[in-house]
Amino acid sequence: MTRPDAPPGAVRQGSLREWNLAVVLGRIAAADRPPSRAELAAGTGLTRATVSAVVEDLLAGRLVTEAEPTPRTGAGRPSRGLVLATDGPAGLGLEINVDYLAACVVDLAGRVRHHTVRRADLRPLSAAEALARLADLAAHARADATREGLTLAGAALAVPGLVDDAGLVRLAPNLGWRDVPVPALLGKGPPLTAHVDGVPPLVVDNEANLAALGELHAGPAGRPSFLHISGEVGIGAGIVLDGALYRGARGWSGEIGHLPIRPDGPPCRCGSRGCLETYTGQEAILAAAGLAGADLPADTATTRLAELAGAGDPAALRALAGAGTALGVALAGVVNLLDLDTVVLGGGYAPLAPWLRPPVLAEISRRVLTAAWSPVTVRPATLGAAAAAVGGAGSVVRRILARPAGWLARPA
Amino acid sequence: MTRPDAPPGAVRQGSLREWNLAVVLGRIAAADRPPSRAELAAGTGLTRATVSAVVEDLLAGRLVTEAEPTPRTGAGRPSRGLVLATDGPAGLGLEINVDYLAACVVDLAGRVRHHTVRRADLRPLSAAEALARLADLAAHARADATREGLTLAGAALAVPGLVDDAGLVRLAPNLGWRDVPVPALLGKGPPLTAHVDGVPPLVVDNEANLAALGELHAGPAGRPSFLHISGEVGIGAGIVLDGALYRGARGWSGEIGHLPIRPDGPPCRCGSRGCLETYTGQEAILAAAGLAGADLPADTATTRLAELAGAGDPAALRALAGAGTALGVALAGVVNLLDLDTVVLGGGYAPLAPWLRPPVLAEISRRVLTAAWSPVTVRPATLGAAAAAVGGAGSVVRRILARPAGWLARPA
Repeated sequence: MTRPDAPPGAVRQGSLREWNLAVVLGRIAAADRPPSRAELAAGTGLTRATVSAVVEDLLAGRLVTEAEPTPRTGAGRPSRGLVLATDGPAGLGLEINVDYLAACVVDLAGRVRHHTVRRADLRPLSAAEALARLADLAAHARADATREGLTLAGAALAVPGLVDDAGLVRLAPNLGWRDVPVPALLGKGPPLTAHVDGVPPLVVDNEANLAALGELHAGPAGRPSFLHISGEVGIGAGIVLDGALYRGARGWSGEIGHLPIRPDGPPCRCGSRGCLETYTGQEAILAAAGLAGADLPADTATTRLAELAGAGDPAALRALAGAGTALGVALAGVVNLLDLDTVVLGGGYAPLAPWLRPPVLAEISRRVLTAAWSPVTVRPATLGAAAAAVGGAGSVVRRILARPAGWLARPA
Repeated sequence: MTRPDAPPGAVRQGSLREWNLAVVLGRIAAADRPPSRAELAAGTGLTRATVSAVVEDLLAGRLVTEAEPTPRTGAGRPSRGLVLATDGPAGLGLEINVDYLAACVVDLAGRVRHHTVRRADLRPLSAAEALARLADLAAHARADATREGLTLAGAALAVPGLVDDAGLVRLAPNLGWRDVPVPALLGKGPPLTAHVDGVPPLVVDNEANLAALGELHAGPAGRPSFLHISGEVGIGAGIVLDGALYRGARGWSGEIGHLPIRPDGPPCRCGSRGCLETYTGQEAILAAAGLAGADLPADTATTRLAELAGAGDPAALRALAGAGTALGVALAGVVNLLDLDTVVLGGGYAPLAPWLRPPVLAEISRRVLTAAWSPVTVRPATLGAAAAAVGGAGSVVRRILARPAGWLARPA
């Protein structure tokens, strides 16, 4: 298999077509306005005959469509620009979290075509029961996608835990899961997605990783570097370096919730002491604000906290200032280590960003060596709680864009 | 310019030769034993005629030489394997640190051909005076290289500070430097290196970055991921991900010395409080061991500390245990965040590793979520204090291997 980011060693005939398909499709995906065949030839260095043949394949496979013709500017046929298809392959993004399930469908052009969130405390349920509910939500999303003429090419599921390559959830402390074989439990029903070479039918991934991909998907173009921190009951981070998710040596990066703030601080669910999560996890913040035991769902409690802070409630303001300072201490360490120019406050932190941001910035400016001449941007996430499901669906779409030949060769 | 790691878009004729040169030279560099032209053709997919032409160019340019012929195994001429030349281009690595200067020369095959260290406390000197001493050391290294038939193709200088793209040292707190234009100050004499397209005559880089590259150079083959932490008066880290140095969004990654251990801990030279450096910087460890003010050079003091610890001195053992615990708290946070499977104790930490390693491992096993099923290796550096100069010289060599056409096209 030849991937566009793999050095070709020597380009062989068989893979040359795959390569050209990916190069032309990538140009169409990245273009500001629909490029013509002639512009694609000029931009890629391929001959016009090659570009025409490649474009025919992409049109026949519902990967691109022709945009409305632009007015004639000279002799000859009007040039028709090419755009990504919105009735071809799509990605399915799923999320299972402590207190909600979500499903979403993203088309090849990156548009969210379907999005459902179902609130429920999943902690009392077994993993099999929780996954059965998720399968139901996924089937609805699939039926909706089919009605819109889309074909699901793959799925990605976000879980708040550590996942290995085979989709085994090693540990999801806040769900009480340990060694849960998600693909086996979820894959009992009929297949959700078409078989596409190079696109796994189901990828299980850490919630914070997929949320960071969602933010990448929703954010400005280019190859940004940022840390996306999701504040839920647990805290996770996704690290995007040069436009790509950094997963770590074994795929378990981003456990920022267990960065020590005070080595001898309060005990943490992980068995250690003084972790960031004990200061700035959702439950810790709510408890500090006097909202613990109110028995509200977490998102409702967060909304309530934001309302109280907005109204100037001293306990709410004190809790958010304390959490923001602890978050800032941790993030200053991360920025010193990784030299990131942007930190995105996601998940439950997004609606609290007006109060968390100032103390976070204060700690960064106090502790980051380069802050004086190289400011760090701290901003709320664009997608908030939807980020992980959108990011999962987007990761499927990116696989198709990276290797369209797999989609074109799928069994009819 | 075509680099082997850049997707070619469309391969044009002009760059095809460059590409083939890099592919064949890369194969020779990576081979376990000297490959023949026939083996190179089989391994690259290029024709034998193309390989022969490419090899002629590489031989003529002193990038490869023919190894001794192996015994005939059949009909035809004996096959002569190809190896990297040891009388062609070489890299110059330089280091300026708080209490020493160093210069080293590494040949294309990766061998260290020259290495000099000159001890002196550089803090009383101006930047211009310190760099004049370094220029003298560099000139000696160059003369030595020339005597051995080597041509210096580029130089890299390690400094204990934050450096921008133009080689301006923005801040080197332990040298007392701020905004020092190193290339302008060092480049006053005759040019040290040949002009080679694609190889900058002088790269100024952070000491911890180049030390990590040195460790990469000296360590096992492959594409490892590790953190190399250098414990000197200041503490720096170089982060290697998948065999490549991670520099951060602006090139300032690795400031691990300012990871907060206790947010309200002792004041740090950086202006903040409780940074790792205040617990495990060389001066902090020596003070805790009762060796402060002994007025010994730092490396002598470190040796003395290791001797005392080896003899069971309680103050020395207590100081090292405390430093190891603080180091472990910081490293556990880094491993949780980045999921690295290896931590290398470098610089002044290397000789102290027997005492630092156990408390570091204890904190990692206590605080890293994945440690139970995925152990982290903590080991002393292979190169110790020489790492940065070797890494700098090696980075020059890698540039030539990545784009040999630049070397071949240099003015006679």
